[in-house]
Amino acid sequence: MRTAITERLGVEFPLFAFSHCRDVVAAVTNAGGFGVLGAIAYTPEQLDTELSWIDERVGGRPYGVDVLVPGKIDASALDRDARLADFIPERHRDFVTHLLSKYGVTGPVQPMGGSPDEFGRRVTAAGATGLIDVALKHPIGLIASALGPPPPEMVTGAREAGVPVAALVGTVEHARRQVAAGADLIVAQGTEAGGHTGEIATMVLVPQVVDAVAPLPVLAAGGIASGRQMAAAMALGAQGVWCGSVWLTTEEAETAPSVKRKMLTASSLDTVRSRSRTGKPARQLRSAWTDEWDSGQESPGPLPMPLQMLVAEGTMARVTAAAERGEPGALELANYFVGQVVGQMNQIKPAREVVYEMVSEFADAVERLARLSG
Amino acid sequence: MRTAITERLGVEFPLFAFSHCRDVVAAVTNAGGFGVLGAIAYTPEQLDTELSWIDERVGGRPYGVDVLVPGKIDASALDRDARLADFIPERHRDFVTHLLSKYGVTGPVQPMGGSPDEFGRRVTAAGATGLIDVALKHPIGLIASALGPPPPEMVTGAREAGVPVAALVGTVEHARRQVAAGADLIVAQGTEAGGHTGEIATMVLVPQVVDAVAPLPVLAAGGIASGRQMAAAMALGAQGVWCGSVWLTTEEAETAPSVKRKMLTASSLDTVRSRSRTGKPARQLRSAWTDEWDSGQESPGPLPMPLQMLVAEGTMARVTAAAERGEPGALELANYFVGQVVGQMNQIKPAREVVYEMVSEFADAVERLARLSG
Repeated sequence: MRTAITERLGVEFPLFAFSHCRDVVAAVTNAGGFGVLGAIAYTPEQLDTELSWIDERVGGRPYGVDVLVPGKIDASALDRDARLADFIPERHRDFVTHLLSKYGVTGPVQPMGGSPDEFGRRVTAAGATGLIDVALKHPIGLIASALGPPPPEMVTGAREAGVPVAALVGTVEHARRQVAAGADLIVAQGTEAGGHTGEIATMVLVPQVVDAVAPLPVLAAGGIASGRQMAAAMALGAQGVWCGSVWLTTEEAETAPSVKRKMLTASSLDTVRSRSRTGKPARQLRSAWTDEWDSGQESPGPLPMPLQMLVAEGTMARVTAAAERGEPGALELANYFVGQVVGQMNQIKPAREVVYEMVSEFADAVERLARLSG
Repeated sequence: MRTAITERLGVEFPLFAFSHCRDVVAAVTNAGGFGVLGAIAYTPEQLDTELSWIDERVGGRPYGVDVLVPGKIDASALDRDARLADFIPERHRDFVTHLLSKYGVTGPVQPMGGSPDEFGRRVTAAGATGLIDVALKHPIGLIASALGPPPPEMVTGAREAGVPVAALVGTVEHARRQVAAGADLIVAQGTEAGGHTGEIATMVLVPQVVDAVAPLPVLAAGGIASGRQMAAAMALGAQGVWCGSVWLTTEEAETAPSVKRKMLTASSLDTVRSRSRTGKPARQLRSAWTDEWDSGQESPGPLPMPLQMLVAEGTMARVTAAAERGEPGALELANYFVGQVVGQMNQIKPAREVVYEMVSEFADAVERLARLSG
């Protein structure tokens, strides 16, 4: 398959796999796709280890790294001397305690990557710098900003390293801002996507973004987990596709088994855009966690990013551990970021097989279209 | 172009135009598409007149009629002896009075099609019968149920007349129910669509519905207003597309000029799924009307269908008339059903030209896809 993207990045299929799991990144890259590791959960040292692990396995094939540097976050995160935990109000702490008790969750608090302050500040330009510096020391083929325009340091560093910069957008306005900030490649992500996502559907967003940023190439994200959907995205004008959800139920994925089981049985109606995990609207499995935060009578409402990340991250790690032990209340609360395509993720497969199936179904869809067009 | 749909319905392009305006229906049908007249606003006598007008202009080409028979409506509408107006609570009447006064809307109450009771009951199986009977006396090529499974009388009547029955759905479950009720053809409509719509995006919904109802053919709706989007929908497995919004800014459309102007300048972020016009979630232009009902402090909340239709229909007709006179408050309130594609509707064109552009862009998109597939 040949598009502007396959040429530029030296990849066989313009199929990008966003994952927090190095095994998925390596497997997709080795299958001819382009794996992109989400770096946010790692300290710079941990990221270095993960990327070295990938380097050893992909034989020089290009892969990417993704960081999160939103334009708007709580001011506390920008003050280097502040203890972020001090900015979490008592009633938010109390609500979490109440939830854990109401749902009978036991077990110890789980550690997050680095201290709470390190973790929370990783979504600031200053905090992301450590991750970006580490990433650019590896032979990566792409660095992506998942939320908000890439900070100047990131663009400068990437330029010097000869690495193209991708940026995710949910509106045409975002796309224009990202291009102005130096993005080389735009990922237009529709509302049906998992994780942080806007309100406009992929079908509507992609052609608008393609037209707005031409001649820069655009990848489509949101609602893409099959070859038919890949063909649809490229019919809209995208030069490739960026998929996240579909890898969560692959053999390689580090998704907790209890959450994987929820995903395998969920329908496309079982997701919700909720601020309850990060402070910004992110699509995820609907669960008692999202219900309690979004419409529970006692809910204090989610905090801004990154404070809600601090509230949620350790708690949900604890919930997941309890769910793995089969605690019923924890199973009700457990969830994870995933898009509406969860309704078609009904079987655990190797990531490699997902790539081959998508590419093969893509070819079939294009052939079928060409036939009926006559 | 040849698909199961073009063969079955004897139409040149599998491009369906849902419109409340007979001029659009005739223009699209004459251009090789398939016009479908929304019947809900008419009395049976009025519908008869409209369809005769179309018959005289389309030279025997097939067109369709669309009715609305939701599965769940307020019980009052099912009681033939009840006066529907009696079921509208005082505080809902007061809220409308308050809104009209707050926004300084002047001018007389506008008539709706038939009495309030006739109008409100047209969304029941019993009430729709009159419309269906009239429709089946004309040489129509399709009858569609826009919401809820087609009632048995509709299926029986259509079978006798040799007219295929289409049904709109927003989930796989709806699709299965519609097939069980006798639908010959499913329209899978994504959340980005205008009018009554669910939560699942077209990109995700269409392949699931195609697989669930095979070998029955599926049309895709929601987010489709260009040839690229048409190609995308058909890459997903649809045999054709069902478009509503794109006709609202055509030369032929009866859209009020003030609302047409709003649509021409609106972005894809300027729509909202709101119960404020019909009692069921329907995507429309966001305006002071939707804001006041959905989040205004004094809002009593919308009533169930069809009571909210009675509350909104006459009032919005009055608002639109006042907006046409340039009353600023009325301009703030004025809106209409439209999908997220409103962001790409930036120019008034003849409906015929929209058809030709879509078909031509469709061919280009398929050719481009075939090239990059190699």
